[in-house]
Amino acid sequence: MDPFSSRTEYSVAYADTDQMGVVYYANFLVMFERARTRFLQDLGYPYTEFEADGFMLPVVEAHVDYLQPALYEDVLTLSATAEFIGRVRVKINCRVHRGDTLLAKGHTIHVCMDKAKSRPAKFPARLMQAHQEFVGE
Amino acid sequence: MDPFSSRTEYSVAYADTDQMGVVYYANFLVMFERARTRFLQDLGYPYTEFEADGFMLPVVEAHVDYLQPALYEDVLTLSATAEFIGRVRVKINCRVHRGDTLLAKGHTIHVCMDKAKSRPAKFPARLMQAHQEFVGE
Amino acid sequence: MDPFSSRTEYSVAYADTDQMGVVYYANFLVMFERARTRFLQDLGYPYTEFEADGFMLPVVEAHVDYLQPALYEDVLTLSATAEFIGRVRVKINCRVHRGDTLLAKGHTIHVCMDKAKSRPAKFPARLMQAHQEFVGE
Amino acid sequence: MDPFSSRTEYSVAYADTDQMGVVYYANFLVMFERARTRFLQDLGYPYTEFEADGFMLPVVEAHVDYLQPALYEDVLTLSATAEFIGRVRVKINCRVHRGDTLLAKGHTIHVCMDKAKSRPAKFPARLMQAHQEFVGE
Repeated sequence: MDPFSSRTEYSVAYADTDQMGVVYYANFLVMFERARTRFLQDLGYPYTEFEADGFMLPVVEAHVDYLQPALYEDVLTLSATAEFIGRVRVKINCRVHRGDTLLAKGHTIHVCMDKAKSRPAKFPARLMQAHQEFVGE
Repeated sequence: MDPFSSRTEYSVAYADTDQMGVVYYANFLVMFERARTRFLQDLGYPYTEFEADGFMLPVVEAHVDYLQPALYEDVLTLSATAEFIGRVRVKINCRVHRGDTLLAKGHTIHVCMDKAKSRPAKFPARLMQAHQEFVGE
Repeated sequence: MDPFSSRTEYSVAYADTDQMGVVYYANFLVMFERARTRFLQDLGYPYTEFEADGFMLPVVEAHVDYLQPALYEDVLTLSATAEFIGRVRVKINCRVHRGDTLLAKGHTIHVCMDKAKSRPAKFPARLMQAHQEFVGE
Repeated sequence: MDPFSSRTEYSVAYADTDQMGVVYYANFLVMFERARTRFLQDLGYPYTEFEADGFMLPVVEAHVDYLQPALYEDVLTLSATAEFIGRVRVKINCRVHRGDTLLAKGHTIHVCMDKAKSRPAKFPARLMQAHQEFVGE
């Protein structure tokens, strides 16, 4: 199956542009976040529930390769896929397309944290199982 | 005394601009927030302490009049003054200048809330007293 | 007909929230912009074409009334309607709903400008006609 | 000399935070931009003049390592240094400190473009000379 099968659409706002006439570079990290949010929704474990369960996923690394500019009124397709690294880290690979054109790609790395204890925690079984089922589909 | 005596400077980032080549209109509300933050610091009761004391000041109304555009690399002067309305509401009047030129003015209205009870609360005596001393100076 | 018949959906990002746990107040002006963008698309005269035709619509006034907070992962409905004021000004009324609950309402006022001449210009006939047809539907 | 000798201060706004109670990760790229802007000002060739001279510096890569969270009302120190890669590329290394504590570090890579021709262009002699003098100080 296509590993980037979790997708969401995003309409570029005027707010996203800068005076170069294209989407400002930091806003691609917001798009990556939108791709992650949808990915977790598609897994059946929305981030809001993940937080309510006492966890959080702060980011420790972010990387973006910018290939083509995105423009106001573009409708972009955002996609994500996950690679679990050990028991407390996950790498989320993200892509931003306009139609078939890849505009940007990159990744973020997150650590699973226990909110109350403020320290790294194993990913909850619910997340690992949901991911297993999603990938195995 | 000048009611707008609490002032802070802000350097416009490329991020703040849009493809019209000027600061995007929503970012003036962020500048208003910066003026409020400095105002409370100047009063001697920073918002971080106000929150730590169990209060918050959600906004119920915001208004901006845009007179002149702000540009990338501008160093702007942000100022604020407060009018208390009864015991739970405050109107903060804000201005954005570049040198002597007024670029935007407006206000926000906030309700003092008790965070734990999630309901309106009288402003704490510390705030009222700090404001009294600041204005009376 | 419902004057707020032009609608678009918006998914709240984590980026939109602040440490109060709700959508930061300035981001409602970005939602208002999204409602305007969709309104012009629904009229058949997207803002990108409006700009390409040599016009722009800088904002001179913005106002928001905040009724209820918006939350991460909310899917909001943004709507807009227009009132033309004379030949160079337009007031756009905007609303933000979550389901049937009105979270915020307000307006922006814009001046039609000739980009090349940097001065106010009559709205182009194409816009007035498109609006007439849209409202008359 | 300290290669990160170009520095600017930044006060974290409430707008910068998210519901995790810390500065949202994309906003570090805005801080990196502020560090670059100051770096060019310190070189004596502000980006506004660079653009007015017909050039632009779109980003092709961005990378951030997040070490410690930044908080509302923090006053951060942003610093940057440049490594020219051939005649059309530059890598800007950036750091975000709170006092002596390093909160984030990373880099961006930019291509020098001729705006009118929309294609890569050699860095203007003025920039190379300004950098030479700055580093040689």
